[in-house]
Amino acid sequence: MMVHDLTHTVSLLTRTPAALNALLRDLPERWTSHNEGENTWSAFDVVGHLIHGERTDWMPRARIILQFGQTQAFEPFDLWGQVRECQGKSLGQLLDEFARLRSENLDELRALNLQPEDLALRGRHPALGVVTLSELLATWAVHDLTHLHQISRTMAHQYREDVGPWSAYLGVLQCAGHSSS
Amino acid sequence: MMVHDLTHTVSLLTRTPAALNALLRDLPERWTSHNEGENTWSAFDVVGHLIHGERTDWMPRARIILQFGQTQAFEPFDLWGQVRECQGKSLGQLLDEFARLRSENLDELRALNLQPEDLALRGRHPALGVVTLSELLATWAVHDLTHLHQISRTMAHQYREDVGPWSAYLGVLQCAGHSSS
Repeated sequence: MMVHDLTHTVSLLTRTPAALNALLRDLPERWTSHNEGENTWSAFDVVGHLIHGERTDWMPRARIILQFGQTQAFEPFDLWGQVRECQGKSLGQLLDEFARLRSENLDELRALNLQPEDLALRGRHPALGVVTLSELLATWAVHDLTHLHQISRTMAHQYREDVGPWSAYLGVLQCAGHSSS
Repeated sequence: MMVHDLTHTVSLLTRTPAALNALLRDLPERWTSHNEGENTWSAFDVVGHLIHGERTDWMPRARIILQFGQTQAFEPFDLWGQVRECQGKSLGQLLDEFARLRSENLDELRALNLQPEDLALRGRHPALGVVTLSELLATWAVHDLTHLHQISRTMAHQYREDVGPWSAYLGVLQCAGHSSS
């Protein structure tokens, strides 16, 4: 059973809140509050989604694997859970909340002191079937990257007309997106 | 002639170096020094490319528009210019250099105190033909986003196997890239 290097994963997970904070805090709403069209997310929505993941996805699922293995499937993740997370909040508040929750989750992860044999433990995803704890934690990091990818694309979309003929050279403007992210 | 809101552009341009610094500094090389295959760029290479753009692309081209209008075409940009920029340097050094050059360029841009009529001035791109100063400066910002998009994709690629069946759900892993970025 292949397991990945958890220190690499934690290195990335640690940095995402600060990277999003540096990119998004106090940025004009022209960039942060517009989406790519119906049923798509703005940068603001994405931060809410990341918060919802911290609360309900990654560490809760890790705990299920450690406690129940394959005998208990994960709760399905609510892909529109950020609507509740975002209600009445500013982007600055969301960025603070994401940083706090991520930090708490990483503290909990480190305290587990997971060993390679733990990372090879298996759980059950409601749609994907058998997965390992290693895959879950690697996915946590790539999920950050998929949403950084989405945020950069969504923000670039707001300037689609402004760049004139350069749009042909800007890869991000050729990206049609991939399902919700 | 449509011109965009330059304050929005400057807001984004100001934040990119700090965002990349927060994401990449001291991150394990597993994430930063690998590319997506032959003739593609690692995150390290991309920072070198951004440095090369600060030196030879954006403000030099803005100066050409302001001084010569359409009578002098821009110098073609060297898409592999980062090879020289990166030689013998660490990622930390490149991040420092990008931040310094960007800050200097934005100081110069602010000192120009460009008005809407300046932004409507036209220049000549060697391949795209007539462009405006407004389009050039908007492209500078979207160029940052296209490379943030590329960096997130290139880093995610390094974990393609590690996420197991979740690869189907991670949009960034479905992105095939778009020319060099």
